[in-house]
Amino acid sequence: MKVDGTAYRSIWLSDDGWSVGIIDQTVLPHRFVTVRLETLEDAAVAIETMQVRGAPLIGATAAYGICLALRAETTDENLEKACERLAGTRPTAVNLHWAIDEMRRALENTAPEDRVSAAYERAALICDEDVETNRQIGVHGLEIIKEHAARKKGGRVNILTHCNAGWLATVDWGTALAPIYMAHDDGIDVHVWVDETRPRNQGAALTAWELGSHGVPHTVIVDNAGGHLMQHGKVDLCIVGTDRTAASGDVANKIGTYLKALAAKDNNVPFYVALPHSTIDWSIDDGLREIPIEERGPEEITTVSGRSGEGAVDSVSITAPGSAVANPAFDVTPARLVTKLITDRGSCPPSREDLAVLFPEKA
Amino acid sequence: MKVDGTAYRSIWLSDDGWSVGIIDQTVLPHRFVTVRLETLEDAAVAIETMQVRGAPLIGATAAYGICLALRAETTDENLEKACERLAGTRPTAVNLHWAIDEMRRALENTAPEDRVSAAYERAALICDEDVETNRQIGVHGLEIIKEHAARKKGGRVNILTHCNAGWLATVDWGTALAPIYMAHDDGIDVHVWVDETRPRNQGAALTAWELGSHGVPHTVIVDNAGGHLMQHGKVDLCIVGTDRTAASGDVANKIGTYLKALAAKDNNVPFYVALPHSTIDWSIDDGLREIPIEERGPEEITTVSGRSGEGAVDSVSITAPGSAVANPAFDVTPARLVTKLITDRGSCPPSREDLAVLFPEKA
Repeated sequence: MKVDGTAYRSIWLSDDGWSVGIIDQTVLPHRFVTVRLETLEDAAVAIETMQVRGAPLIGATAAYGICLALRAETTDENLEKACERLAGTRPTAVNLHWAIDEMRRALENTAPEDRVSAAYERAALICDEDVETNRQIGVHGLEIIKEHAARKKGGRVNILTHCNAGWLATVDWGTALAPIYMAHDDGIDVHVWVDETRPRNQGAALTAWELGSHGVPHTVIVDNAGGHLMQHGKVDLCIVGTDRTAASGDVANKIGTYLKALAAKDNNVPFYVALPHSTIDWSIDDGLREIPIEERGPEEITTVSGRSGEGAVDSVSITAPGSAVANPAFDVTPARLVTKLITDRGSCPPSREDLAVLFPEKA
Repeated sequence: MKVDGTAYRSIWLSDDGWSVGIIDQTVLPHRFVTVRLETLEDAAVAIETMQVRGAPLIGATAAYGICLALRAETTDENLEKACERLAGTRPTAVNLHWAIDEMRRALENTAPEDRVSAAYERAALICDEDVETNRQIGVHGLEIIKEHAARKKGGRVNILTHCNAGWLATVDWGTALAPIYMAHDDGIDVHVWVDETRPRNQGAALTAWELGSHGVPHTVIVDNAGGHLMQHGKVDLCIVGTDRTAASGDVANKIGTYLKALAAKDNNVPFYVALPHSTIDWSIDDGLREIPIEERGPEEITTVSGRSGEGAVDSVSITAPGSAVANPAFDVTPARLVTKLITDRGSCPPSREDLAVLFPEKA
């Protein structure tokens, strides 16, 4: 999508034909800084430090990380070492592993001298496929927004979202935000309630920045406020992303998603989850019991980063000194709270049977 | 309770016998600063800027504000002007109005020359009564914690709380935290999950600081995390405060309380609300429709204050520049989600009938 009138993807091959460009998402929305990745370690650290985040973008960055590793050394050992290094960066993200497996499959039977070009080709394909996947999610989600717009007879459609499942989290378009961008571009009067999404504030920082850059009306709220808005009829539907989707339709998404799904249920607000097929884990039936939840560092909670008076990106400590902190990064929303899954092959109720109709080859 | 070994209340008469001391709660937990109130305006501004906050402490501060106003001028007109000025500081807090009415009743039939001493006497009584009220809440809430401790056979009792309903929010003891302090002092192994409570972070700043100062084990979490903890059996009960309690048992408390109550219901975790009788509004049956919700300024969301690297209290801007912001300060938790109300006269199910048994003279 566009930044100051210039079209960007969230990851791209540089003009030199080998190094990889990304946007440093840790300093958004305060500064727009692009970073050049030149080595496997650059890519791994970009994932670990969340300069790139969002399941699809993590996958794309891992794919290019393997390209950069092979550029240094094309051996089987180095390919395997690169896959292992990248696999350890973010344990919860299922399509990090999907992207690594795709790359490994494309490369393990390729002669070492052909591996570099094959890797770049496969990584570019992963990116292009992601863009097309998200476009398809947008098309199917747009139908749902159109239904709500029709019910409101042209009145404003208010959509609540959590965290950032926009183009910054993917290669382009986004998952949860793709239908919203399309609805806006289609002339539907959409307005987005943006959960700030503590502890990392991806909503207030990234989603608000994205939507603002594209001209979509939106309002930032604290994570505590969504239930109140739903009680008072100010939310017509929720659309969120997911980092990992159980075949049963349980979804692991950013911590706090479950609370919004409970409020949506309590107030008869439809709760939609947008996802690329790569986030579906067909081996999992009970998301709550089987999806491991990443526990991240305490400093994400004790410290908040933002623009200081002088315009620099600075951070302040907010918690009482000496207090213990816990930081589970995701929670699992049970399928019973999800109205529909919006996939790149269409929308369906959240169940193995319904997903199997859309993805018969996987089921 | 104690601060560095010294017993404090949250508001006190200074040694000079007329000016009023408070703790500036806007700079806690970073600095411990006391402030001297000398005029009505000092008191009104302390309430407005939330140097003092929490329903009972707001009431006590308003009572002393009237003392300070009368000290300047003892006329009927000035008494009425003072009451009006104070009543406008925080519209949602019902016992701000209760305290003002108590003072007005005690003073309107008092001769002007006796008003100052009568006002100070009545304000001191309001403070002492609040301390006793909270002690009673503590005694009744302790019974509930003891039941949970017995069920866990001496294992740790994990209690989730939201915002700050501790001694800093009252004159001493606190409402939601009074039972916890008593349980801890009684040798029960309690541990408190402290919601940070955006936007003003009263949990991470004040509740964590209070509990830490008293030696109660606790862990700070983001507001998004409580549901996840309940799904995994890590919360035995919730205790929160309330700013306004409908006679039906609906409770208006800090924004986000409703989301935790939903999660508690979904996971069979008992959800208790601790309250002094002064927060009960006997005229209200439908909290959701009838309790007006204060909308506060956007800067509470866009800006976060904390300790900078240099140790000063500083603030940073966290939201995307140009994004709109909405800031409802409270939400209403319907009685159907509340297990029991813990009042200064005992605990009861959340209903007009049950409250009437405890408060027959009011019902």
